Amino acid sequence: MIEDKKDKYLVTFRPSGKRGYIEAGRSVGEAALELGVDLENICGGRGVCGKCRVRIKEGLLGRHDIKTGVKGLSPLTDSERKRLTRQEKSDGYRLACQARIYDNITVFVPEESRVGKQIVRKAATERAVNLEPAVKKYYVEMKPASLEEPQADWERLQAELKKRFGLDNLIIDYTVLLNLRKAMRLNDWKVTVTLWMNREVIKIEPGFVDKGYGLAVDIGTTTMVGYLCDLSGGEVAASDSMINPQVIYGADVMSRITYIMANDSGLERAHRAVIKAINQIARRAALQAGVKREDIVDVSVVGNTCMHHIFLSIDPSGLGQSPFTPAIHHSLDIKARDLGLKISPGAYVHVLPIEAGFVGADNVGVLIAEEPHKQNDIMLIIDIGTNGELVLGNRKRLISSSCATGPAFEGAQIKYGMCAAPEAIEKVKIDPVTKEVHFKVIGGADWDVDSGAVKAKGICGSGIVDAVAEMLKAGILQRSGRFNIDLGTPRLRRTEKGPEFVIAWANETAIGQDITLCQGDIRAVQLAKGAMYAGAKLMMCRLGVARLDKVVLAGAFGSYIDKESALTLGLFPDCPLEDIYSVGNAAGDGARLALLNMDKRSEADEIAREVEYIELAVEPDFATQFSQAMYFPHKKDEFPHLSELFQAKKNSEVKGMKTC
Amino acid sequence: MIEDKKDKYLVTFRPSGKRGYIEAGRSVGEAALELGVDLENICGGRGVCGKCRVRIKEGLLGRHDIKTGVKGLSPLTDSERKRLTRQEKSDGYRLACQARIYDNITVFVPEESRVGKQIVRKAATERAVNLEPAVKKYYVEMKPASLEEPQADWERLQAELKKRFGLDNLIIDYTVLLNLRKAMRLNDWKVTVTLWMNREVIKIEPGFVDKGYGLAVDIGTTTMVGYLCDLSGGEVAASDSMINPQVIYGADVMSRITYIMANDSGLERAHRAVIKAINQIARRAALQAGVKREDIVDVSVVGNTCMHHIFLSIDPSGLGQSPFTPAIHHSLDIKARDLGLKISPGAYVHVLPIEAGFVGADNVGVLIAEEPHKQNDIMLIIDIGTNGELVLGNRKRLISSSCATGPAFEGAQIKYGMCAAPEAIEKVKIDPVTKEVHFKVIGGADWDVDSGAVKAKGICGSGIVDAVAEMLKAGILQRSGRFNIDLGTPRLRRTEKGPEFVIAWANETAIGQDITLCQGDIRAVQLAKGAMYAGAKLMMCRLGVARLDKVVLAGAFGSYIDKESALTLGLFPDCPLEDIYSVGNAAGDGARLALLNMDKRSEADEIAREVEYIELAVEPDFATQFSQAMYFPHKKDEFPHLSELFQAKKNSEVKGMKTC
Repeated sequence: MIEDKKDKYLVTFRPSGKRGYIEAGRSVGEAALELGVDLENICGGRGVCGKCRVRIKEGLLGRHDIKTGVKGLSPLTDSERKRLTRQEKSDGYRLACQARIYDNITVFVPEESRVGKQIVRKAATERAVNLEPAVKKYYVEMKPASLEEPQADWERLQAELKKRFGLDNLIIDYTVLLNLRKAMRLNDWKVTVTLWMNREVIKIEPGFVDKGYGLAVDIGTTTMVGYLCDLSGGEVAASDSMINPQVIYGADVMSRITYIMANDSGLERAHRAVIKAINQIARRAALQAGVKREDIVDVSVVGNTCMHHIFLSIDPSGLGQSPFTPAIHHSLDIKARDLGLKISPGAYVHVLPIEAGFVGADNVGVLIAEEPHKQNDIMLIIDIGTNGELVLGNRKRLISSSCATGPAFEGAQIKYGMCAAPEAIEKVKIDPVTKEVHFKVIGGADWDVDSGAVKAKGICGSGIVDAVAEMLKAGILQRSGRFNIDLGTPRLRRTEKGPEFVIAWANETAIGQDITLCQGDIRAVQLAKGAMYAGAKLMMCRLGVARLDKVVLAGAFGSYIDKESALTLGLFPDCPLEDIYSVGNAAGDGARLALLNMDKRSEADEIAREVEYIELAVEPDFATQFSQAMYFPHKKDEFPHLSELFQAKKNSEVKGMKTC
Repeated sequence: MIEDKKDKYLVTFRPSGKRGYIEAGRSVGEAALELGVDLENICGGRGVCGKCRVRIKEGLLGRHDIKTGVKGLSPLTDSERKRLTRQEKSDGYRLACQARIYDNITVFVPEESRVGKQIVRKAATERAVNLEPAVKKYYVEMKPASLEEPQADWERLQAELKKRFGLDNLIIDYTVLLNLRKAMRLNDWKVTVTLWMNREVIKIEPGFVDKGYGLAVDIGTTTMVGYLCDLSGGEVAASDSMINPQVIYGADVMSRITYIMANDSGLERAHRAVIKAINQIARRAALQAGVKREDIVDVSVVGNTCMHHIFLSIDPSGLGQSPFTPAIHHSLDIKARDLGLKISPGAYVHVLPIEAGFVGADNVGVLIAEEPHKQNDIMLIIDIGTNGELVLGNRKRLISSSCATGPAFEGAQIKYGMCAAPEAIEKVKIDPVTKEVHFKVIGGADWDVDSGAVKAKGICGSGIVDAVAEMLKAGILQRSGRFNIDLGTPRLRRTEKGPEFVIAWANETAIGQDITLCQGDIRAVQLAKGAMYAGAKLMMCRLGVARLDKVVLAGAFGSYIDKESALTLGLFPDCPLEDIYSVGNAAGDGARLALLNMDKRSEADEIAREVEYIELAVEPDFATQFSQAMYFPHKKDEFPHLSELFQAKKNSEVKGMKTC
């Protein structure tokens, strides 16, 4: 650090602490570059983007002058006067690319001016991700072509990108090349170039454009969601969702594979339907955010293996029969135009990798969002959809599996079940003494407020979990799933098909009849939870762990479920309540992360390769485990974190009520 | 080389001389790999392709046994019995991948079994090019997918390609991925994979397929040619040509640019026309070779800058106005499907680089074919088309230029001129004493045979050059281009528009009138040749060279021109006759070389960057040089290699004939 100090000044950057002697007259931005300080530089030091705001620390250099700026630096330029607010000027803010150094200074780089800003995301473990998208914009000003410098347009642009940003060995998308001439001349040889992976020019726009958008897409078997993300800030600018139009070809994955195998043009039809849907989501999200669909310059996609194949127009037949071989595991980058997606024509679509025939890119999305591979705690992740996908482990080893839960938690196969839509009962409480029921309806008022305003139409997954847990606590249900009858409440009654419990009386419903849970409904819940629990248990045996440190419930259902009710039912082995997390659509979060940080893409490929897939159905112990797990919460396993339930249970057993 | 020889045998390869001790039981192919001997290995040692034929040298190991093969090697396998002829077997041929080593042996690797066979091409300098195409085929056999090995199809294929051929980090074209499943299962998990640049899988076919084809395309302003090349052997399997359909938008480059600038959809129309034409050429060439258009897995394209831009659908307006900036200099690799070319869907099109606004990819093709940058001799290359393109120099420095020759040498602007088609006079001889004319017609009989069978319709470029040269030698024309009249022959006559000379009498023609060359025709030839000569002269000054070591005449016209006639006219400065070469369509040859050898592609990019383009019209000396070069062969310059002409000229001057 000790150099010839003649005409050089000591420049110190905060908070990094990096410092060094910089030649007089060099800009603060150049000093940052030289000293390796992280600083935004979108416009290449042209004073156009205003992203390199820095604050010169007070007290070190005396007063700030609102007109001339900070002592020891060159006066404010026109560009700074235009881009800094009055407050910022008086606080000593400058644009690093404009302010030239004429004294020893200390420069504070605020968070928002750093390259790779951190985006904080709520998850099982609070964490931040660096903003380092695969697609970035660069602003370039060039000298006009002349007879003395008759270089071709592309070579001229390349030379400037190399000079300004050190970008080398670039290639250009064919469709961009077609517009190059016009774009370069339309705004006086000033353009904004959009680069993919710092390797390929995928868009060129005249003048300075700082915003670019990416679309993260989660193709669920039933629901498709798109998040339109601002790639320069990381925020979700808009989101849109719709029912997967493929539902007309079958409600679940297996029936869609069958449809495609039986119909010659079935794959093409299903593929086109999903592409059309994504185009619609893109159009609506763009409209909502006030941008054009062509402003979308990147797309990331997750989905289960079957949705992944159909999205790509790959025959999914192999997934429907042993040995359940997918066409590809690895992630893919495909030109959006090859898929028929109507976004920026040069853009790529990044399709996340898949783990195995039954554990798809959606689960990989969950993994890069929840990061079990970076933790010491043993984490169980349950992604609950029409299929349940389980991941168990920590940084040392991860295993995954899938289990056929059936759609009980999505409200299907339940007499009065429905999806989590308005008018669905989503929360239930039962008084252990009076057996009276309180419930909450989606779109209705809160607990204890007059709930008659919105009437119930059915009961959704979280309501079912609540109801069953409360029925257990109130002694209405036994651990075996059978009803305790003769409790002296009109809600519990016998019918021809067995006993049923009334959750909502006809006058509280919009369907003119009582909403009940019957013995068949309880059995469906038992089968679903039994499969999940047995799966988790077998995986724990395989991994050699006796207890779980953390449980993560992912999936749309997972985000609304009451954690205590879930544990009461025994959806998974015992775990402290405070270590159970509902993270919502973690697969979609994973897609967003892949959009905002390209390292997450390689992480996804690595983790997809490392996770060991195990086939549960072939485990010799499966049947035994499954039958024991059908009990609430389990036939044998201890649930030390469920004292309350056991209390209730004990009471009911003491009373020795009859069973039906 | 001295190692533990226990269970190892000394294996010597000829002609390379490489040798070493190889473990007993290893195959000759494995020995070749270990010792770094060039040997074909298309099928990865499966005994399927039969390309690794080697001959075990006689005399070293005793007799060959036609049943068991050569002593010291394992007996013939079924695969060898099937693939080697009886003669080959008795000559000691084996398949290197099948024959295992059990004694010291000497192996001769014949030329056709070497990787990178040499393709000899006739050119100014006889040379050979290694067959190392950008697109290659690999044959792979895999284990079927099973529950124990449920790897995805693509990962399974990748693993095998890595194991067999050391190919790593491969990607797969999206359209190929769609067929992967089917292709892998159709022939029992045996496939042939087509790789582009050893990086991307661009095709997959069930079973073993050894032939792949490439199409080299030369888009001329007037004529388009396609050469269908066998990428495994290097030969031209078929070729096809057609008139560039863009001629309806203008005969020359300038008029097409004007058309495009004046018509909104002009570019699209011209682009579509050329794409459609290439599709037609591909279809017809494939038909001719008995293959499918989908068997074409690579395309290389050359053309002048304007044709290059229109082919790519890039607006060529910039080429028509100062500073004449093209959109791109560098070569391009574009998916054929993005251009609408109907060949193998995953294939790329390689577009060669361009040098400057007026010196295009066609000239780069000429350069990589003629290789002036690899020689010490000072070479002048003249590519004669509607525009003349000149390159001058050697390995130290190369300069290029273009000159507006006009279409005189293509037969246009000449009263009875026509293109080099059947019925055109292509060669002319004039008796210096009697002034009687002999000519040869394209499609007609040879000299001195009764030439009346095919009558003349006009005169083409080479005929014009011959005729003018012969007229000079016979004293009919003066060096200034004026006619010597009163020579006592009815062939030379005065008309209202000046004198003219009869080449063919009406009864020898198919048009019912005499075919003549008039004063205007001679002037057109003078303008064209003057521009070329002046260009060459100015370039020689710029390069500081006084004489040419070699002259290369390229272009369709160049291949038929009589070298002596060309020198007699002074199409270029003096050069020994034996150092003048007519190389035909060297641009098309360059396209073929780029198809057969990928190093030629990088060589093209390098040379395109290195050649200095000079603008002739702005040289202060241009007008003087041009007017002096209008003389035959030149007003002042010496032509020591043209004694004959000077003799004839002297005679005529001695006779003191009148001039008109």
